[in-house]
Amino acid sequence: MRLWGGRFAKAPAEAAFRFTASLPFDKRLWRHDIAGSLAHARMLGECGIITRAEAAKIVSGLKKIERELSAQEKQKGEPDFDPASEDIHTEIERLLRRKIGRLAGKLHTARSRNDQVALDMRLYVKEEIGCILEALRNLQGVIVRRAEEHMKPGRETILPGYTHRQRAQPVLLSHHLLSYFWAFERDRARFADCLDRADVLPLGAAALAGTSFPIEPAFVAKELGFSNTFENSMDAVSDRDFVLEFLAAASITMLHLSSLAEDMTFWNLSETGYAQLDEAWCTGSSIMPQKRNPDAAELVSAKAGRVPKHFSGLLAAWKSLPKAYNLHFQEDKEALFDAADTLEGSLAAVTGMLKTIKFFPDRMEKAAGEGFTVAVEAADYLVRKGVPFREAHGIVGKAVRECEKRGIALRELPMNEWRRLSPLFGTDLLKHLTPRGAVTAKKSSGGTAPARVREQLRMAKRALGGKAR
Amino acid sequence: MRLWGGRFAKAPAEAAFRFTASLPFDKRLWRHDIAGSLAHARMLGECGIITRAEAAKIVSGLKKIERELSAQEKQKGEPDFDPASEDIHTEIERLLRRKIGRLAGKLHTARSRNDQVALDMRLYVKEEIGCILEALRNLQGVIVRRAEEHMKPGRETILPGYTHRQRAQPVLLSHHLLSYFWAFERDRARFADCLDRADVLPLGAAALAGTSFPIEPAFVAKELGFSNTFENSMDAVSDRDFVLEFLAAASITMLHLSSLAEDMTFWNLSETGYAQLDEAWCTGSSIMPQKRNPDAAELVSAKAGRVPKHFSGLLAAWKSLPKAYNLHFQEDKEALFDAADTLEGSLAAVTGMLKTIKFFPDRMEKAAGEGFTVAVEAADYLVRKGVPFREAHGIVGKAVRECEKRGIALRELPMNEWRRLSPLFGTDLLKHLTPRGAVTAKKSSGGTAPARVREQLRMAKRALGGKAR
Amino acid sequence: MRLWGGRFAKAPAEAAFRFTASLPFDKRLWRHDIAGSLAHARMLGECGIITRAEAAKIVSGLKKIERELSAQEKQKGEPDFDPASEDIHTEIERLLRRKIGRLAGKLHTARSRNDQVALDMRLYVKEEIGCILEALRNLQGVIVRRAEEHMKPGRETILPGYTHRQRAQPVLLSHHLLSYFWAFERDRARFADCLDRADVLPLGAAALAGTSFPIEPAFVAKELGFSNTFENSMDAVSDRDFVLEFLAAASITMLHLSSLAEDMTFWNLSETGYAQLDEAWCTGSSIMPQKRNPDAAELVSAKAGRVPKHFSGLLAAWKSLPKAYNLHFQEDKEALFDAADTLEGSLAAVTGMLKTIKFFPDRMEKAAGEGFTVAVEAADYLVRKGVPFREAHGIVGKAVRECEKRGIALRELPMNEWRRLSPLFGTDLLKHLTPRGAVTAKKSSGGTAPARVREQLRMAKRALGGKAR
Amino acid sequence: MRLWGGRFAKAPAEAAFRFTASLPFDKRLWRHDIAGSLAHARMLGECGIITRAEAAKIVSGLKKIERELSAQEKQKGEPDFDPASEDIHTEIERLLRRKIGRLAGKLHTARSRNDQVALDMRLYVKEEIGCILEALRNLQGVIVRRAEEHMKPGRETILPGYTHRQRAQPVLLSHHLLSYFWAFERDRARFADCLDRADVLPLGAAALAGTSFPIEPAFVAKELGFSNTFENSMDAVSDRDFVLEFLAAASITMLHLSSLAEDMTFWNLSETGYAQLDEAWCTGSSIMPQKRNPDAAELVSAKAGRVPKHFSGLLAAWKSLPKAYNLHFQEDKEALFDAADTLEGSLAAVTGMLKTIKFFPDRMEKAAGEGFTVAVEAADYLVRKGVPFREAHGIVGKAVRECEKRGIALRELPMNEWRRLSPLFGTDLLKHLTPRGAVTAKKSSGGTAPARVREQLRMAKRALGGKAR
Repeated sequence: MRLWGGRFAKAPAEAAFRFTASLPFDKRLWRHDIAGSLAHARMLGECGIITRAEAAKIVSGLKKIERELSAQEKQKGEPDFDPASEDIHTEIERLLRRKIGRLAGKLHTARSRNDQVALDMRLYVKEEIGCILEALRNLQGVIVRRAEEHMKPGRETILPGYTHRQRAQPVLLSHHLLSYFWAFERDRARFADCLDRADVLPLGAAALAGTSFPIEPAFVAKELGFSNTFENSMDAVSDRDFVLEFLAAASITMLHLSSLAEDMTFWNLSETGYAQLDEAWCTGSSIMPQKRNPDAAELVSAKAGRVPKHFSGLLAAWKSLPKAYNLHFQEDKEALFDAADTLEGSLAAVTGMLKTIKFFPDRMEKAAGEGFTVAVEAADYLVRKGVPFREAHGIVGKAVRECEKRGIALRELPMNEWRRLSPLFGTDLLKHLTPRGAVTAKKSSGGTAPARVREQLRMAKRALGGKAR
Repeated sequence: MRLWGGRFAKAPAEAAFRFTASLPFDKRLWRHDIAGSLAHARMLGECGIITRAEAAKIVSGLKKIERELSAQEKQKGEPDFDPASEDIHTEIERLLRRKIGRLAGKLHTARSRNDQVALDMRLYVKEEIGCILEALRNLQGVIVRRAEEHMKPGRETILPGYTHRQRAQPVLLSHHLLSYFWAFERDRARFADCLDRADVLPLGAAALAGTSFPIEPAFVAKELGFSNTFENSMDAVSDRDFVLEFLAAASITMLHLSSLAEDMTFWNLSETGYAQLDEAWCTGSSIMPQKRNPDAAELVSAKAGRVPKHFSGLLAAWKSLPKAYNLHFQEDKEALFDAADTLEGSLAAVTGMLKTIKFFPDRMEKAAGEGFTVAVEAADYLVRKGVPFREAHGIVGKAVRECEKRGIALRELPMNEWRRLSPLFGTDLLKHLTPRGAVTAKKSSGGTAPARVREQLRMAKRALGGKAR
Repeated sequence: MRLWGGRFAKAPAEAAFRFTASLPFDKRLWRHDIAGSLAHARMLGECGIITRAEAAKIVSGLKKIERELSAQEKQKGEPDFDPASEDIHTEIERLLRRKIGRLAGKLHTARSRNDQVALDMRLYVKEEIGCILEALRNLQGVIVRRAEEHMKPGRETILPGYTHRQRAQPVLLSHHLLSYFWAFERDRARFADCLDRADVLPLGAAALAGTSFPIEPAFVAKELGFSNTFENSMDAVSDRDFVLEFLAAASITMLHLSSLAEDMTFWNLSETGYAQLDEAWCTGSSIMPQKRNPDAAELVSAKAGRVPKHFSGLLAAWKSLPKAYNLHFQEDKEALFDAADTLEGSLAAVTGMLKTIKFFPDRMEKAAGEGFTVAVEAADYLVRKGVPFREAHGIVGKAVRECEKRGIALRELPMNEWRRLSPLFGTDLLKHLTPRGAVTAKKSSGGTAPARVREQLRMAKRALGGKAR
Repeated sequence: MRLWGGRFAKAPAEAAFRFTASLPFDKRLWRHDIAGSLAHARMLGECGIITRAEAAKIVSGLKKIERELSAQEKQKGEPDFDPASEDIHTEIERLLRRKIGRLAGKLHTARSRNDQVALDMRLYVKEEIGCILEALRNLQGVIVRRAEEHMKPGRETILPGYTHRQRAQPVLLSHHLLSYFWAFERDRARFADCLDRADVLPLGAAALAGTSFPIEPAFVAKELGFSNTFENSMDAVSDRDFVLEFLAAASITMLHLSSLAEDMTFWNLSETGYAQLDEAWCTGSSIMPQKRNPDAAELVSAKAGRVPKHFSGLLAAWKSLPKAYNLHFQEDKEALFDAADTLEGSLAAVTGMLKTIKFFPDRMEKAAGEGFTVAVEAADYLVRKGVPFREAHGIVGKAVRECEKRGIALRELPMNEWRRLSPLFGTDLLKHLTPRGAVTAKKSSGGTAPARVREQLRMAKRALGGKAR
C-alpha cells in the first residue's frame, strides 16, 4: 500500500489546485491562445482603446513568446510552462508580463477568460477539421485508386457480397470498396457543416454581457479568419455545440472506419484468404510466422467504442446547466483532444492498411461462385417470364435443394431437370448462373454491374475534385 | 417466484421468434411502408416490369388496406396486426395477398426487405424532422414574444446574469431569453442538414447488389418526394448515418432544452422568487399548496440524459459490422422512436412552460443590484482613463471590500473614498454603478445594452421568417 | 405532413399530463404494488394505527382487485387500467376506493408515493434477479453438458484456439466452452451481490423524513421477504443504486453473451465449417438454402450495445440531484424493464443456440493442425534443455520459415534439419508437434490438458450445485 | 494550416507504431510489472524450471532496475523509458537484458504477455481499490464528525428537507448528512466485492492454453498477495470484468459525490445562505469579492458525467469479441487510469469541502419554518383521531390556503378556525406546528427525530469501525 499512501494527506489548498487546474491539458492550446491575443491586441490599438504604440509592444512581446515556446517545443517536445499557472491563459499572461511589464495588464481590456477560452477552442476545432477533411479526402483517394486497379475490362475482380455474414450475391470488389467512398463523403459533409457552425468569433462577449469598450469584432474576425461574429454574448460564452457536433461527426466516421477495418480483417483471415494485410500494419510473432496479428485493425475497431463516449460524457457533464458560463465547460478539452487524436490515428491506420493490402482475386472469385450465390438470377429469370417473385423463389428453392443433395452447382443441373421445375426455363438461363453473369446483370442505377461501377468511379473522382460539400 | 416461473421453458422456436420479430415496434411504420409500396408498384407498371393493369390492382389493394388500417387506428388506437407476422413488411404483404391473391407476389419484384426497410426509415425520419423543425420554430416564436414583453423602453426587465451559479453582472431578461433563440437556431440548422442527408431514396438497391430489372429510381423518388437517389447499392442498404445524425442533433437540442428548463426551475425557486411556473406544468400536493413541483421541468432535465444514450447505444451495436446488411440494423427503430417521442414531448413541455411562466421583474431587478454585480463598471471606468485592467481590478477590489465591511452598495461609497483609491475617479462614476447603468453600457455587438437587444430581436424575427437555413 | 400535423396543438394541460404520467409503463408493477399494500395494511392493523377490522377490509379489497386484474390479464394480455390515472399507485387506490369506499383513504397512512415506488422497484428487481440467476445457471448447465460430450477419453475434441482472430494454439473445445462457464459464474455472483443490496425495505421512509405513526417496518419486511430495513429515511427514498448495479451487472453479462454468440457465429461460417447453428435459431431464405442467417446471434451482439446505454443514461439523468426525492427517478422504470427483458431474451437465445448447435470435430481438429499452431511446443522443448526462451523462439522461427517455404508441417521436417538448427533436438520432439500432443502437454493448473479440463468440469458441477456465491 | 501540415506524411511503419504502442500510457504500471516478474522469477527457481542461481540473478537485476527507476521518478517526476519500446513489458525486459544479458530471456519462460498484462492490471486495480476504500472511509468519518457537531441536545440543527427542489418537511442537518454516509457505505461494499473478484492470479495462463512447464501458481499468488488462482486459462487471459466492475462502482460513487456537491453548492448560494464553502475550495475573482465560484463542486458535478463514459466505452470496445486475447483489451488502461484519478480527485475535493464548509443554522432553521413545511403534521393529527388520510389532507389544505391568503403561518391560525375545519382539532395541535415539533415527531425507524438520528450515528460509527463489508 506504500505506492499510494498519503496521497490524500496533502494540504487542501494544493489538492484543490490540482483538482481544478487545467494547464496540464489546455497547454496544448498555447498557439491558439497567442494567436487570439495578437488579434485582440491589434484591435485594441486600431480602435483606440489602447494606443497604437501599446498595441505594438504587446504584439511584439507575444511574438517573442511564440518564438521561444516554439523553440522549446522543437527541442524538448513540449514548451516549459510553469505548473503554478492554473491555465494556459494565465501562463501566457505571466510570460508577457515578464517580457513587457505592467503593460501586459492592458491586453485583458474588454476581454474575459470566458470568451478567450471559447475562442481558443474554436480555433482548435477549425484547424482540426481542416486536418480531418484532408485525411478523409486522402483515404477516399486511396479507395478510388484501389477500386480502379480492379476494374480491368472483362476481368473486374469479383468477390462474394455478404449479408448477415453469409455469402449472398457476387459483387465487384471495386463496388464494395466504393461503398465506403460515399460514407466518407457524408463524413466530409458533416465536418464541413460543423466547421460552418464553429466559424463564429466569440471574442467580445467578455464575461457574459458584452463590454462597454468600443471594440470591433469584425476586425478580430478578419485577422483570425472567422466568417461570422456572435449575436448574443450569453450564448457566445456558453455555446459548445461545435465541440459536441465535432464529436458526433467523429463518432460516425469511426463507425465507418471500424467497418472497413473489419472487412479487411475478415478478408485477411486464413479462413478466407481473400487478402493479406501488409506487415507494416501487423505484428508478427517471432515464433509463429503465420501469425500476422492485425493490430492496427483491432485497435480501430476498439477505438470506435472510444470516440462516442466523449460525446455522451460531455452531454452528461453539461446537462441542465444554467446560463451562462460554468466550470463544467472545462471538461471539453480532454474529451475533444482525445477524440481528435484517436480519429486522426485511425484515419492514418485505415488509409495505410488499405493502401498496402494485397488482394487475391482468384480466391475471391472462387468463393463468389460457391454457395448458390447466383440462385436469385434463376428466380429473376422466371419473373421476367411473368411468374410472381414469391413463386419463382419457391421453384428455384427446389433446384437449389436438389443441387445441394447432389453436391453440384446450379449451372451443373441438367436443363431437363430445370424444365421439370418450370417449363419456362430455357438454355439462355445458364449464362446468368455464373458470378460474372450475375454481376453483369445488376445494371440498375448504383448497382454492381461493371458499367455502373465505372460511372460510380467517375462520380467519385468528380466529388474528390470539388469542395467538401 | 411464480410470476416469472417457466418463462424460459418455452419451445426454442417460439423463443427465437419472439426474440427476433420486429412487428411489435416496426408496426409504427405501416403508413410509410404502404406509401413506399404504392410508389414501387406504380414504377413497376410504368417501366413495364409488370403490366399497368397489374400495377393498378396492387395500388388499389394497398389503398384499401391503408383505409382499413386507418379506420382501425382511429377506432382502437392501433390497427389489428397479426402477431404471427415477423415484421411490418411481411404483414402488409399478407394483407395484400388476402385482398388481391397471388398477384401480391409481384409487388416484390426488384425489391428486397433490405432496401424496403431503409426506405421506411428514411420516410419516417424526414417526416419527423419536419415536425421538429416546426416545433423548434414554435418555441423560438415564444422566446421572441416573451422577450418583446420585457423591452418596454426605459423599463426593460433586468435580472442578475450568473456565472458559476453566482451572480455576476446584470443583464436584460430579454437578452437572457434570446440566448436560447440562437441555440435553437443552430438546432434547426443541424436538423436541416440531417434532412438533406436523409433525403436519398434507397429503393432499387435490392438485397445489396442492385437488380437486373429496368427500374426507374427517379420515378419513385419523385412520387415519394426524395431529392436524391443513391450512388452505391451496398452503401444504400447499410447506411444508417441519418439515424445517428438525427440522434446527435436531438441530443444537442435536449441539452439546450434542459438548460432552459433549469433556468426556469431556478427562477421558480422560492429562494429566488424571480418567476412562477404555471400550474398546468406543475403538480401540486393536496396538502402543501406552496408545493408547485416543477414536474415537467424535472423530466426534461432527466430526459436530456435519455436521448444521448440511443446515439451511443446504436454506435456500440453497429461497431465493426462488415458490409452490407446485418440484422443489427433492426435496433435502430426503438432507439429512434423513443428519441423522437422524447424530444417532441420535451419541446412541447418547454414551449408550454415558457409561454405561461409569470416573471416578477421587481424581484429580478432587486437581486440584480445586490452583490456588487456592477463592480466591473468601476474597473472599466479606470481603464478608460488609462489604468491597465489588472490594476483597475485591484483598486476596485479594495472598494468592494470596504463596502462589504460597511454593508453598503458601491454607489453608496462617498466620492472622497473613491478618490483616495484612485484620483482618476470622478462623480460621473456613479451613473455606471446601477444595474440599469451597467446594462446600458454593454453596447458592444451582441451585448446586453437595450439598443443591442432590440437589434437582436429584429435579427431573430428575420431568422424566423426565413427557412431553417 | 398530415401524419403528425396538429400533434402540438393540444391543450397544455393535456400535453403536461401525457409528458409526466407514468402509468403507460409503471403499470407493469401492478402486482408488486398490491403486494406492498397488502403488507402495509396488515402492519397498520397489527400496530393499531388502523383497526384490525379496517385492515381486514382493505386486505380483502386488494385481494379482489388482484384476482380481477389477473383475470383480465389472462384474457386480454393486459389488465384494464384507466388512462386518466397518472401512475399505478393512483390507479390501484382508485380501484380500491371503488371496492371499499372512503376506507381506502386509510391505506395511505404513514406512507408516501416516494417510499411506495421505491418498494415496488425493489420487489421487481429482486424477482428479476431470481429469474436471471436461474437462467444463468441453466446456461451454465448447458455448457457443462456440451463440454462433457466432447471429452471422450483419447478423443477429446480439439479446435484451434485464436488470439487476435488468428489461429494460435490448439485447445480442447470443452476448455473453450468452459471458459464461459466461469464468466457466467462471476455474473451470478454480481447479481447475488446486487440482490443483497436490493434486499432492503424502504417502506416507512414516507415522503423523506419518516413518520410520526408507530409503524413496524420489521413486520412488513417479514411479510414481503426482505432481509433488511433502512437506516436513513432520506437515503431510503432516493437510493436507486440497486437499479444501477443491476444494469451494470446486466451489461457485463451481455458482454459475455455477445462473445459466446460471436464464437458460435464464427464456428458457423461457411469459411470455417466448425459447426452449424440449428435452424430454429436462424432464418433461412426461401431461395438460398445455404443462407442460414444467424439472426438471434446477430441480435445478441447488437443488444450488447443496448443494455449498457441504460446504465449511462440513468447516471446522466440523475447526476447532481439534490436530496431527496426528484421526479428524475421516474426514468428508472423503462430503462430497467428494457434491460431486464433484453437480458432475459438474450440468455434464452444463447442457451437455445448452444443447446442445439452441431459441432464438426473433424473440421475443427484439421484446422487445429494447420498454421504451425504447435510451434511453441518446439520452443518449450529447447527451453527444457536450458535454452533461454527468447533464443528458442528464434531457432524455431527458422524451422517454421523453412517449413512454410516447402509447404510442409513442422513434424514433416526431417530430424537432421532440426538438429542443424539446434543439436539439442531429439526424436522425442515429434510427439509434441501434433495438436493432441500440444494440448496434452498443457498440464499446468487451469490449462487445456484433458486431465485439467476433467478437473475443471468437476469444479464446474460443484459450483452449479451450490448457491450463487 | 501549418500547425498540422504533414502529420499524415509519416512513414506508415512509424504511424503504425505510434498507433499501436502502449508505452505512453502503460508505463504507469512499471512497478506492478516488476513486482510480477520478481514473483515469477522466484517461482521458476523454486520449481526448478530455471536454476536457483539464475533466479537469484534475475531477481537481483530486477531489483536494481526498480531502484533506478524509483530514483529517476523522484528526480524528474517520471522514469526514463525508451520510447522505442512498444510497451512496458518490453521495456522492462530490455532494461533487464542490459543488466544481466541473455539470461533475461529466461524470465519469460512459461509466461506470455497476455497473462503478464492481465496480472499487472489486477495488481493495479487491487491497489487502487485499497486507496479508494480508505478515501471513502475518510469521507464517511468527516460526515460523522460534521453530523455530530449539529446534534447538541435540544438545539439540533434543522433545515428544510426538499423534494422536487421545493421545501417539503423540516429535517435535521445531521440526518441529511448521514443519508450520504449510507450511500458511501454501499460504495465501499461494491468496491470490496470488486476486490474479491479482482483477487485472482492470472499468471500461468500463458498465451491462452496454459503451459507445459511445471509451474506453481500458488507460490506466485502467495508472493503477490492473491487469494485465488484461475480455473480456466482462456478465461484468465480475456477476463476484464474486474475493470468494468471497478468502473461501474466508480460511476455510482461519482453519482453520490455529485449529489453531495450539489447540496453543498445549493446551501452555498447567496439565495439560500445556508452555508459557505471554504475559500480553499472556491476561486474568488479579484474584482468581485462576493464571487466565491464553487470551482471544485462544479468539477465534481461535471466529472460525474466523465467516469461512466469509460464503462460504456469499454463495453462498446469489447462487444462481440471472440475468445481469447484480442488487442482491444489494450484500451482498458487509459479508461481505468482516468476513472481512478478522477474518482480520487473528486473524493478528495468533496471530503475537503465538507470538512471546511461553514453552516449557518439560524438561516437554515428560519427557512425550515417557512412555506408550510409542517402542514403534514396537522393532517397526521387528524389521522390519529380516525380521519382517513386523504380526507385529512383535504381539510388541512383548506387551512393552508386560508393562511396563505392572510400571509400567516399555520400555527398563527386561530384555534376556532381550525375547529371550524374539523371539530377534532384541539389546542395540542400547535406544538406539532413548528419545525422542531415536526422533526421530533418523526420517530419511526430511520426517521429524522433526534433520538433516531443519535441511534443512526452510533450505527455509523460501528460501521466505520468494521471492515468494508
